[in-house]
Amino acid sequence: MPRYALKIEYDGRPFCGWQTQVGHPSVQGAIETALARLEPDLPRIAAAGRTDTGVHATGQVAHCDMARDWNPFRLMEALNHHLRPLPVAILACAPVDPDFHARFSATERRYLFRLIARRAPPTFEAGQVWHIRHSLSLGPMQEAARLLLGTHDFTTFRASQCQALSPVKTLDALEISAHDLLHGQEFRFALRARSFLHNQVRSIVGTLERVGAGAWKPADVAAALAAQDRAACGPVSPPDGLYLTGVGYPHDPFGG
Amino acid sequence: MPRYALKIEYDGRPFCGWQTQVGHPSVQGAIETALARLEPDLPRIAAAGRTDTGVHATGQVAHCDMARDWNPFRLMEALNHHLRPLPVAILACAPVDPDFHARFSATERRYLFRLIARRAPPTFEAGQVWHIRHSLSLGPMQEAARLLLGTHDFTTFRASQCQALSPVKTLDALEISAHDLLHGQEFRFALRARSFLHNQVRSIVGTLERVGAGAWKPADVAAALAAQDRAACGPVSPPDGLYLTGVGYPHDPFGG
Repeated sequence: MPRYALKIEYDGRPFCGWQTQVGHPSVQGAIETALARLEPDLPRIAAAGRTDTGVHATGQVAHCDMARDWNPFRLMEALNHHLRPLPVAILACAPVDPDFHARFSATERRYLFRLIARRAPPTFEAGQVWHIRHSLSLGPMQEAARLLLGTHDFTTFRASQCQALSPVKTLDALEISAHDLLHGQEFRFALRARSFLHNQVRSIVGTLERVGAGAWKPADVAAALAAQDRAACGPVSPPDGLYLTGVGYPHDPFGG
Repeated sequence: MPRYALKIEYDGRPFCGWQTQVGHPSVQGAIETALARLEPDLPRIAAAGRTDTGVHATGQVAHCDMARDWNPFRLMEALNHHLRPLPVAILACAPVDPDFHARFSATERRYLFRLIARRAPPTFEAGQVWHIRHSLSLGPMQEAARLLLGTHDFTTFRASQCQALSPVKTLDALEISAHDLLHGQEFRFALRARSFLHNQVRSIVGTLERVGAGAWKPADVAAALAAQDRAACGPVSPPDGLYLTGVGYPHDPFGG
């Protein structure tokens, strides 16, 4: 069966997450339903990152196997047609070798977390950002972020239900930037690693927010990491602001 | 009665526009309902720009008269509390003189129009941008835009139901910028004038889109303007991408 890689954008709000769950709308289910309009009895699809309930993507990658050969552009267009009006869009489609696997071939995941700090609630971006009502200091958050870079046992920043074999991960980038809004500020946390533990990004961002608010010092984050104890983690941020923005492969199937 | 100026952000999708219409949800009605939770029997409020159905705002200004003196910060907080969960937020609140009028004191309106050109439909920004599926050329649109600057009879770019006394307006700025997306481009049209005719921005943007697509030449836009004939206008763009971003006053009540 010819295999295709799909680059996918979705607003996670109406979904129980990427993965199919009986009785709940999932992104995977939405795309598989659209595929079933094109060809019957296709195999399940697989994605690079199984995002949680309410988590978004601007560059998720999945692969699908089709019975017949498709022009990739026409496959993208047909899927987008059948996905309407759901907030899921196929941004690109490319043929890949049969040994390409969206999840197991991936060598990098990139995430963005958006936090808006202002008094008024968000309007356009409700559910798409984490809204806090106090101001944050960028410098201390950046200082604490640097302490998390590199290879560590991230047990502190790992959900108890995480199924990864090891809590040791290598965090290659954690860059925080501040952007002035008309009223208030937006903070963007950009993270990059080969792979992440379950809830690792939300646990890190929730902890760094405490540093930005002045409740924690950067050294407290180092101590929490060293504790290798889930109980040492700060509050876990909500899913609203989290986006899977990209997936890296040894050979980019989309030619980027 | 003490008068307050309100700076207001709203997602226009669920509303019939700013102005109250019997049987339809309006932004004015939402704010007046929130005000009524604070004090009974208040006068109607007035806004700088009466935005149409589906049109958004990031910097609308309105004024309200209260029976008692309010701390402006507490008034803003109370209104935001009672506006939930509607996508309407009070960004700022300031006391103003009794002769301040949000509409009649305004000396400038600023609008932004967002257009996304890509094959896939929008997800996060559905209803918040005009989506077109073909590419656009920036240069010709900018060339045509320059022909519209200054004082003209804008009859061509005026809705037939426009109630302005004169079709002559002065367009002080019309800047178009292009921004690369992961796939496709976003075009932003920023317009500034003392005041606008009904549907003037959407008529201009819809006509400029034809230039960007290559269907019209910049000189065709000059000819359409000179015709002073509504029938000479290009297609009117949808409301989705239109934002009232700011209002200017001789003395900014918000101290900006």
